[in-house]
Amino acid sequence: MTASFVEFARALRPEVEAELDRRLPAREEAPAVLHRAMRYSVFAGGKRVRPALAVLVGETFGAARELLLPGAAALEMVHTFSLVHDDLPALDDDDLRRGRPTVHREFDEATAVLVGDALLNLGLHLLMEQPAAAPAQTRLRAASLVAEAVGTFGMIGGQMADLEAEADWPASPQDALEAIHRRKTGALLTAALRLGGAYAGVDGASDELLADLGGRLGLMFQIGDDLLDVEGDSATLGKTAGKDENARKLTYPSLYGLDGSRRMLVEVKGEALELVAGLPRGLDLFTTLVEYLSNRDR
Amino acid sequence: MTASFVEFARALRPEVEAELDRRLPAREEAPAVLHRAMRYSVFAGGKRVRPALAVLVGETFGAARELLLPGAAALEMVHTFSLVHDDLPALDDDDLRRGRPTVHREFDEATAVLVGDALLNLGLHLLMEQPAAAPAQTRLRAASLVAEAVGTFGMIGGQMADLEAEADWPASPQDALEAIHRRKTGALLTAALRLGGAYAGVDGASDELLADLGGRLGLMFQIGDDLLDVEGDSATLGKTAGKDENARKLTYPSLYGLDGSRRMLVEVKGEALELVAGLPRGLDLFTTLVEYLSNRDR
Repeated sequence: MTASFVEFARALRPEVEAELDRRLPAREEAPAVLHRAMRYSVFAGGKRVRPALAVLVGETFGAARELLLPGAAALEMVHTFSLVHDDLPALDDDDLRRGRPTVHREFDEATAVLVGDALLNLGLHLLMEQPAAAPAQTRLRAASLVAEAVGTFGMIGGQMADLEAEADWPASPQDALEAIHRRKTGALLTAALRLGGAYAGVDGASDELLADLGGRLGLMFQIGDDLLDVEGDSATLGKTAGKDENARKLTYPSLYGLDGSRRMLVEVKGEALELVAGLPRGLDLFTTLVEYLSNRDR
Repeated sequence: MTASFVEFARALRPEVEAELDRRLPAREEAPAVLHRAMRYSVFAGGKRVRPALAVLVGETFGAARELLLPGAAALEMVHTFSLVHDDLPALDDDDLRRGRPTVHREFDEATAVLVGDALLNLGLHLLMEQPAAAPAQTRLRAASLVAEAVGTFGMIGGQMADLEAEADWPASPQDALEAIHRRKTGALLTAALRLGGAYAGVDGASDELLADLGGRLGLMFQIGDDLLDVEGDSATLGKTAGKDENARKLTYPSLYGLDGSRRMLVEVKGEALELVAGLPRGLDLFTTLVEYLSNRDR
């Protein structure tokens, strides 16, 4: 029995990475630079949180792990697509990601554009094709859940709204910040939880509960990230600390201050714990994730 | 009865554009700039060849037009995604497309990256969700056909190989050129024909015939484009003529000369006509497309 969600994710990680390795084109296959760059971006040492969320939910509701792994890998491809494109010079212009040069720095910009495109496409394609044992209806629902989370009312829309807010301070910054992060971070986390449920045939009230929890986790991730960005330093974070502040970005600390942001974190934590209490016993493990997310900046 | 494929496509165009209008988010919906830019790129006056290919095949094999239109619109979204990303400064660096500023010139680079992402995602999502009357199995096959055509062994891979060949003249330029265009142009045309067939339940030998024909049409398109690029001028083409030559790109005229390229066009035309002869009577209309593609530079 794992004692915490972080341990669960850590223990699952080799299986997720084996699945990613199986589903990504081989590095020697043409066009080799593109395939190498896809692998460079995917195997960059992420914690594989989204796959772990999907697998934990799916298993708790009764789906076998091998049915869940392709979708878990697909989530990570889609997540990586968004990181690679967001890091581009025309967007967030980041040189480092997880302590290593970003794809456009290690390769070049054209390759980074195509790597992102290819990972989004491959992630969705994988959801359509696998697991072959699942009915067409299930695979279609899985792929559709993720495509919806990616779209202009999800991640892509959140990224665009973030860039717009940067160029032009919004009239209602609180609302803008909330809308950006519900889409940018929350949408795919929500899709991860719902995806795990979908493979186990979960719908109705439980599906809604998972969606609500995903929103709260997304918010906690984002507030925590913003706090870390102010308080951390480049060495521990593996990216340029204080960058958001320099670019005068809309962040929780910039709008609510450090103490205000911490108070929000505590409030959302309470809501998340309440939602977890409504889920089956095996998902108790989420309480440890909620605790972890509320303490990342300490 | 329409007399030619070009007339068929022209007559169908308003229906395809109405379907695109119905499926694209409204221009006033947030994030509005992104939605406006998606519409700017999609409604740029294309001939809607891929939708026409899909609808003609689907109808000939017995599917109703209203079942075919969502997939036809999705093809055009996916095609536009590839144009928008290929035009980016880091890739082909084009300022004009169909006589108008490209998306990154009219808006900005970040918007163009996100517009491409959003159109790819929305196109695939539309194939999953519509037509709602089609069985899940059919929608899954449709979406999967297109995702396969987009991937690193299709359009994205072809674009990458094209960029690689530009940076570093390939050891076997003839093979490289053929491989690039089979993927870059041929893959989505092939998917368009097969998609139309898929909605009508076509598989087996007819599906293979359609795939072979798609390959030949792609080749004819590409040789014709290359010839037009050498012979045309900016005014009639709506893009910067002679650009490929300036960048010392791998093209049919640069490898085989003008006469050699024209001879190849005639040869592929013969193969295409033979394939059309093996298809049902209603697809005779493809002979007019083949004739048209063999004469574009006159």
